[in-house]
Amino acid sequence: MKKVTVHVTLKEGILDPQGQTIETSLHSLGFTEVEEVRTGKTIELLLNDQDNVEARVQAMCTKLLANPVIEDYQLHVEEALQS
Amino acid sequence: MKKVTVHVTLKEGILDPQGQTIETSLHSLGFTEVEEVRTGKTIELLLNDQDNVEARVQAMCTKLLANPVIEDYQLHVEEALQS
Repeated sequence: MKKVTVHVTLKEGILDPQGQTIETSLHSLGFTEVEEVRTGKTIELLLNDQDNVEARVQAMCTKLLANPVIEDYQLHVEEALQS
Repeated sequence: MKKVTVHVTLKEGILDPQGQTIETSLHSLGFTEVEEVRTGKTIELLLNDQDNVEARVQAMCTKLLANPVIEDYQLHVEEALQS
């Protein structure tokens, strides 16, 4: 089994309204040291062993997991611990 | 400036309907090797230098960024590159 973590972030220059809302809320709570907030998502996949894991997950990203027009993604593949 | 990345994930045993939906969609697209999908979020904070960065961000997490009843979080603090 392989465990693949996909980190999806908005490209630089793309507005992040959720991040801006968090920033405003943190300021109201007294955390005035916060300069900028950007949000992203993480998708953890558990996969049965197969060839070309990385290429398959790249395909999943472009077809479903990320929007390549406004988002960047990074993959991190590791061996899953058997439970 | 410090850059802090907060990874928020659902605790083990908490249902993840978004992950289940992604899993079903990946199966329909032919990615039948996918066994399990869990989703999470990432919040990147850019902070002005201040004492106790880690304790301050812990407070942000419990007050706003994560729901400690159903979510776990991890912090990663690094020096921000000056631009």
